[in-house]
Amino acid sequence: MKLALAQINPTVGDLPGNSRKILDFARRARDQGADLVVFPEMGLVGYPPLDLLDRPAFIEAVQRAIERLAQALPPDLGVILGAPVPNGGKVGKRLFNAALLIEGGRIQDAAYKTLLPTYDVFDEYRYFEPAPRRRVVTWRGLRLGLHVCEDMWNNEDAAPYHLYEANPIDELAALGIDLFINISASPFAVGKHRTRNALIEAICREHGRPFVLVNQVGANTELIFDGDSRVHAADGSLIYGAPSFEEDLYVWDLDAGPGPSPRPHDDLADLHDALVLGIRDYFTKTGAFQKALVGLSGGIDSAVTCALAVAALGPERVVGVTMPSKYSSPGSVSDSEALARNLGIAFHEIPIEPAVAAFEAMLAGVFAGTAPGVAEENIQSRTRGVTLMAISNKFDYLLLSTGNKSEAAVGYVTLYGDTNGGVAVLSDVFKTDVYRLAHHINDRAGRAVIPENTITKPPSAELRPDQKDTDSLPPYDVLDAVLRLYIEAHLEVDAIVAQTGFDRALVRHILQQVDRNEYKRRQMPPGLRVTNKAFGIGRRLPIVMRWDRPAVAPSPVTG
Amino acid sequence: MKLALAQINPTVGDLPGNSRKILDFARRARDQGADLVVFPEMGLVGYPPLDLLDRPAFIEAVQRAIERLAQALPPDLGVILGAPVPNGGKVGKRLFNAALLIEGGRIQDAAYKTLLPTYDVFDEYRYFEPAPRRRVVTWRGLRLGLHVCEDMWNNEDAAPYHLYEANPIDELAALGIDLFINISASPFAVGKHRTRNALIEAICREHGRPFVLVNQVGANTELIFDGDSRVHAADGSLIYGAPSFEEDLYVWDLDAGPGPSPRPHDDLADLHDALVLGIRDYFTKTGAFQKALVGLSGGIDSAVTCALAVAALGPERVVGVTMPSKYSSPGSVSDSEALARNLGIAFHEIPIEPAVAAFEAMLAGVFAGTAPGVAEENIQSRTRGVTLMAISNKFDYLLLSTGNKSEAAVGYVTLYGDTNGGVAVLSDVFKTDVYRLAHHINDRAGRAVIPENTITKPPSAELRPDQKDTDSLPPYDVLDAVLRLYIEAHLEVDAIVAQTGFDRALVRHILQQVDRNEYKRRQMPPGLRVTNKAFGIGRRLPIVMRWDRPAVAPSPVTG
Repeated sequence: MKLALAQINPTVGDLPGNSRKILDFARRARDQGADLVVFPEMGLVGYPPLDLLDRPAFIEAVQRAIERLAQALPPDLGVILGAPVPNGGKVGKRLFNAALLIEGGRIQDAAYKTLLPTYDVFDEYRYFEPAPRRRVVTWRGLRLGLHVCEDMWNNEDAAPYHLYEANPIDELAALGIDLFINISASPFAVGKHRTRNALIEAICREHGRPFVLVNQVGANTELIFDGDSRVHAADGSLIYGAPSFEEDLYVWDLDAGPGPSPRPHDDLADLHDALVLGIRDYFTKTGAFQKALVGLSGGIDSAVTCALAVAALGPERVVGVTMPSKYSSPGSVSDSEALARNLGIAFHEIPIEPAVAAFEAMLAGVFAGTAPGVAEENIQSRTRGVTLMAISNKFDYLLLSTGNKSEAAVGYVTLYGDTNGGVAVLSDVFKTDVYRLAHHINDRAGRAVIPENTITKPPSAELRPDQKDTDSLPPYDVLDAVLRLYIEAHLEVDAIVAQTGFDRALVRHILQQVDRNEYKRRQMPPGLRVTNKAFGIGRRLPIVMRWDRPAVAPSPVTG
Repeated sequence: MKLALAQINPTVGDLPGNSRKILDFARRARDQGADLVVFPEMGLVGYPPLDLLDRPAFIEAVQRAIERLAQALPPDLGVILGAPVPNGGKVGKRLFNAALLIEGGRIQDAAYKTLLPTYDVFDEYRYFEPAPRRRVVTWRGLRLGLHVCEDMWNNEDAAPYHLYEANPIDELAALGIDLFINISASPFAVGKHRTRNALIEAICREHGRPFVLVNQVGANTELIFDGDSRVHAADGSLIYGAPSFEEDLYVWDLDAGPGPSPRPHDDLADLHDALVLGIRDYFTKTGAFQKALVGLSGGIDSAVTCALAVAALGPERVVGVTMPSKYSSPGSVSDSEALARNLGIAFHEIPIEPAVAAFEAMLAGVFAGTAPGVAEENIQSRTRGVTLMAISNKFDYLLLSTGNKSEAAVGYVTLYGDTNGGVAVLSDVFKTDVYRLAHHINDRAGRAVIPENTITKPPSAELRPDQKDTDSLPPYDVLDAVLRLYIEAHLEVDAIVAQTGFDRALVRHILQQVDRNEYKRRQMPPGLRVTNKAFGIGRRLPIVMRWDRPAVAPSPVTG
């Protein structure tokens, strides 16, 4: 008895392309002797399909694609396929999130998802009705504990707060099964593979049954799926761990022992590989672009973004542009030039002074009598934004936005300026982690691809003479520590002060800055999600609002 | 026995401000002899609070605010207050969406919301656990059928598809009640008052009980609440209809007959008033701006936006800027000037040629050998965008984005150019309705506030010589008819062709354009929602996706 794990990378909505991929993987699995092949949750439609699920035409097309696949798949192969199917009942949401068992040209059985994640980036109760009951899917005498993604996550160890009344894992185990099969579209976050591993180990130890997890791989807009499909033995030990961030087909002989050792994980390498996959899939799945374009400031964010783009697309498909102003340091151009040379990419230098001077002259009348300030600084950033978008529009280049999560958090960005782009590569990476990524990139290359000077110089937006980020912001190690506790751990002022010892007024000020810059983030490009709480579709806050925490007695602002 | 309807305009998250307002309305109600005063759903926190509800500090602050209110409210007045309260149970979502009955200094009873809208702009299952059962709230011997918003909407006439198993209205009626009380945060859409009226009439006729609806009024970011609070007699007839788009307090004597006749509704006037309220509340509730700023092109969209801004804020708080280029028609300036004069607003003229020429010179090297096209057109739009944002940043003006729903639908806009702004006033108004609004504005003023020439000239982006919108788009009556059926009625090519008789290839092309411009809409400012399906938070589609409908045999594109 052989079971194949088909860790595929589907494109959202691409029913013909995804069907071809499923057929290809199924045939290869059959060729390798598999009796049953398992595809991920929503493998036919890609995840997340979002409001495509509200379109009757889309759902009809999905049902036709399932029928065609059932006809085309090897008839003697069992196939578990994730897809949305209509809820035939008269009440409830219109769809089920289904794991279909297909064999002999037709759907033999199905398990529907019970626990519908409706938090963070997930909106499943927007579309799906929960399964009314848990039941065993029997196939060739084997009792399968078949379930979908979140169904395995209602576990005291995994969730400190019980979100759901039902516990499908316990219910399936109580019904008597031979093995668990979980099909998932479980997005990547740094360290998530450890959580998955611990959870499945615990389930196996509790119930004494083997566990198969098949997860999607690939990126769809914001969400990156790492794969990390796996087989655990009845005692919880790992039999097979699929490589992350790439497609994989593995045929597991239920009677055999452990397979090849999994590739070791490293959080920084995972982060790097996730972002590379995110860029590559945005680029290739949209299919709309000739090359990627990066504005190079000589700073660390644009350098890391550019290096990731080269890792994703190759140097011949990445173009760098440096746009110095009168406030730019000499390193702005020379470090950008060195980076471009190190990466082997095309490089342009376009000084922005002519347009900046033109804007200042155009506005001289309206601005008469005012002192230069943020308005003038933003003109520079927006002039660069216009320049990059002009090149993007002219040559069908994908502009990559280079801002990091720390800047986005406190609004240290210029809307319609440095935020411009199709995808924000580092928007879920704190500044201190951008530095770690830079070192990782250089270590991996065995040479200083990212110039030493870019890494060592004090960060600056270079929008006025001798500007430094620390003129406006606390040091990044302080800022990032506070932001991590506020945004990712959901802590408030007291708890953050207790954990960090930082000044209370400083902490409150940072939290206020985050809240007040919601309007900027609402208009930023989609960003690649690599933590459990990214800005974007998974974090929804009102723009017009007046919630604030109690004032703090003034005290000297310290780091 | 007197019951007061307190149709208040709360600000999201403003617990002190909303509490003061609630106290003020409650005291006024008491002064007018009320025994019971009813506030809207989430009246204490404003709707929608979104992920503020995920913050323990916010929920704790809400509970403290409820306790303080209970102490401060007149002790002999019954108060029904909408607020989130913790779900004390061990499973399920952390909160209930509650209608609290407060009297004598404490919470006496509560009804929790059963039906949690999780579709379109609503994400209630993200936060709230449904009420486990329906029960009657008894107060001074009166059996109240107290329920929250959506709880009244599970009705065959209202929803062609039954979304929920529970039907709170039927269950409450079966339990035996004296009257229904519904507290709502039900957003405006053109014509929605008719739907509410018909639904409540039907409920009264079926169950023979009076019905009180108290709805929020005011705008919070995208959502505009019209109020439209009402009392219906047991036979369904209207006893009182509150004015829309403003706060209102009405004391209903349960033994008295019909009150004053409601103000008559007119769809166009409602649309106008909703948009005015949307601008005013964005401006005043953020409290961050000195004035509103509108870029005036001489065209209809910017003229209508500007007139609405003046209606919302007064002429002294609106500034118009015209930014002609070498492709601008003479009317671009003269019509803008006439509009500004008619409205009595400050007006600036800033020709954009210097910056456009600078950009073209800066890009001459990179663009060498290419023909002028969209890239060059977008430079003009973005130069205007930079100019307006510079003025906005310099003087703390709120830039109003002027694009309409038709343009946003098919991507006939320049990202980081004419889409710039804090709020998109007309983003949910089709171009043909913008014309209707223009006539309405002039009719209301009794003079041509919006110049005749602005209304009659063919629409043009004026980004190249003699450009007309119809160079790129079908006539707006055709385009809007298709868009309305696709976006608002969720129809596909076949059904749209059947209804309109338009060319199949043209219809398919329009639908494709809508799908392909998701990336532009994702980065547009929040827009004021005035239909049942606006772009923005209520319409969630993937950017990276390949869903498409079957190709159509080529045929001449006709209107």
